Amino acid sequence: MKPSNKSLQPVYPPRRAIPAVQSKMKRMDRIPFDCLRETIQCALTNLGLTGERAALSARLTAETDLDGIATHGVARLPRFAEMVRLGRIDPVAMPHCTASFGAIERWSGRLGPGNLAAHAAMARAMELARQHGLGGVALADTTHWQRAGTYGWQATDAGFAAICWSNTLPNMPAWGAKTPAVGNNPLVIAIPRATGPIVLDMAMSQFSYGSLAAYRERNQPLPVPGGFDIDGNLTTDAAAIEASQRALPIGFWKGSGLAFALDVLGAMLAGGNATHNFGLDPLREAGQSQVFLAVSPTALATHNALGNIADDAIAFLHASQPESPGHPARYPGERVLQARAENLRLGVPVNAAAWSFVERLAAQD
Amino acid sequence: MKPSNKSLQPVYPPRRAIPAVQSKMKRMDRIPFDCLRETIQCALTNLGLTGERAALSARLTAETDLDGIATHGVARLPRFAEMVRLGRIDPVAMPHCTASFGAIERWSGRLGPGNLAAHAAMARAMELARQHGLGGVALADTTHWQRAGTYGWQATDAGFAAICWSNTLPNMPAWGAKTPAVGNNPLVIAIPRATGPIVLDMAMSQFSYGSLAAYRERNQPLPVPGGFDIDGNLTTDAAAIEASQRALPIGFWKGSGLAFALDVLGAMLAGGNATHNFGLDPLREAGQSQVFLAVSPTALATHNALGNIADDAIAFLHASQPESPGHPARYPGERVLQARAENLRLGVPVNAAAWSFVERLAAQD
Repeated sequence: MKPSNKSLQPVYPPRRAIPAVQSKMKRMDRIPFDCLRETIQCALTNLGLTGERAALSARLTAETDLDGIATHGVARLPRFAEMVRLGRIDPVAMPHCTASFGAIERWSGRLGPGNLAAHAAMARAMELARQHGLGGVALADTTHWQRAGTYGWQATDAGFAAICWSNTLPNMPAWGAKTPAVGNNPLVIAIPRATGPIVLDMAMSQFSYGSLAAYRERNQPLPVPGGFDIDGNLTTDAAAIEASQRALPIGFWKGSGLAFALDVLGAMLAGGNATHNFGLDPLREAGQSQVFLAVSPTALATHNALGNIADDAIAFLHASQPESPGHPARYPGERVLQARAENLRLGVPVNAAAWSFVERLAAQD
Repeated sequence: MKPSNKSLQPVYPPRRAIPAVQSKMKRMDRIPFDCLRETIQCALTNLGLTGERAALSARLTAETDLDGIATHGVARLPRFAEMVRLGRIDPVAMPHCTASFGAIERWSGRLGPGNLAAHAAMARAMELARQHGLGGVALADTTHWQRAGTYGWQATDAGFAAICWSNTLPNMPAWGAKTPAVGNNPLVIAIPRATGPIVLDMAMSQFSYGSLAAYRERNQPLPVPGGFDIDGNLTTDAAAIEASQRALPIGFWKGSGLAFALDVLGAMLAGGNATHNFGLDPLREAGQSQVFLAVSPTALATHNALGNIADDAIAFLHASQPESPGHPARYPGERVLQARAENLRLGVPVNAAAWSFVERLAAQD
């Protein structure tokens, strides 16, 4: 059950080459958004994705980097390509409905590209919500959906509220245990708003392994404890957590329980795999279960007797006394709009090693 | 915006009289379950609740103590009685549907007893799920629902899965702020299972104020940091957190964002109040928004190709190497069944001061 460190390392590109974009690393280039999207589209076409599917998948990936989430866009493509090469992702597989229960349906991703299956599932959940007020799709046998928040923004762009989550391989010990048993399952809550939606996109560990690597490379302590060292002590030393493979669930026992409950509920809704069905090799992380719930715009009150609900909530949050003067508390998704505007203007920062891989793949025919 | 400590103290009984049940305090008595339920029923009748409503509310309260959640059962009744006396809870108000959108409805609790409105809302969400696969009720203008997990157990007892949450008054600073702006909003995820459901019942702060008081009274440090002291340093000193009123959201920025998103989504679904519409006085905490989502048993796969999903997930969790030998990691809800069996056998531990209040109220006519 105890993983070797090696088995949790991404294979291509090596983890050291994927720093966080926030760190303003040397190895980040800025690429105009359209060039980024088109180059990814060529690369995906060369991997076997066809026509509109290559275009959509490329747009979703490029928008992830555009929004400043550099760990889950272009940086994921080398692993995606390797999983296609190994036959673990089928580039032409189309998701399909396997069972229907009215406002909720069960779909299979058939091990096709995860972002396309997730996008189709959220689109279908919104159709069901348009019809029933509330709609859901539970997706089995899918593959990594890249950035979780993508499907929240997809919903809010169409005026829908949404909740979605995915399970993952067991990459985190449960609270009270030393060996990994729960997944760092990402959870999204998305709320439409005229001047910019609220989109919460959070995984269940305090820091991702990508973030831990970035802190280690910068030789910086974590701002708060992020896991245990090999002796079982809480630590802010990223390298010590990488060595022990004991990342901390948010809120200790609470995030551990939330990760477990999301996993089991998702697998039962989808009739698919739960975290315990996966091994520890990220190149074999295929067959996940995901859930997409959408609420129709007509079932969402934007105003009540007291005013505009979301605007007033944000104003109240911003009015609280900041810990650091001049830096008000932010709402989930607030930074994304700022990053998007900046990156559209200046070009999208991409990890140089992953980008070079994508360019080579795009140029192959 | 900054609360005085006084305004966040429960008024009756004083906080010092409500220790956690786990601490095996002197002031805990054990009462046979039926006696507990019947005495509460008499007390509620004397507060103006009629017939079956008094019986149901009494059962839900008594079962909370039965299940070992002593902070949210009998211990809440003095405050409930005071809010009835002040006219802030209307004991005879019945929840009613204000809008329907197919599988999701909007209800008003009309400021009636919160546990009765929540129970009715979850029952209606299950009816809608029976009809549509998935069902939802968003409840505005309700009052404190006591124990959040109650409505999860209600769903799983009937074979349904459920997600529900409530907003609260602003009792926690958002991440990056020093003054309270987000609520310690409880979230429930409930999954039916033949041999005992999985019921996650978690609020968004690392420790409740009730737990902090219990640690202070025992003169024990918190097992992990639970908030900031008056100088802004993370601390395990419960009294220092009570003094600063800066309880920590689970996972720092993550729990802060989750609390905010749940609040705004709940208020928009219910067309009701969000956290920013409340002041800091718990005796005026009325008019909350809550959401109840249910999934029909027919839309839940208990088995997949690999086995029984929930049983296997629990077995995998239990098989991980424990931090403390002989104490395996637990799934959410696991302790409840143990507490329930023990308390049925030995009598239900109740806080002596609150119990004495209930007995006096029950004897009044």
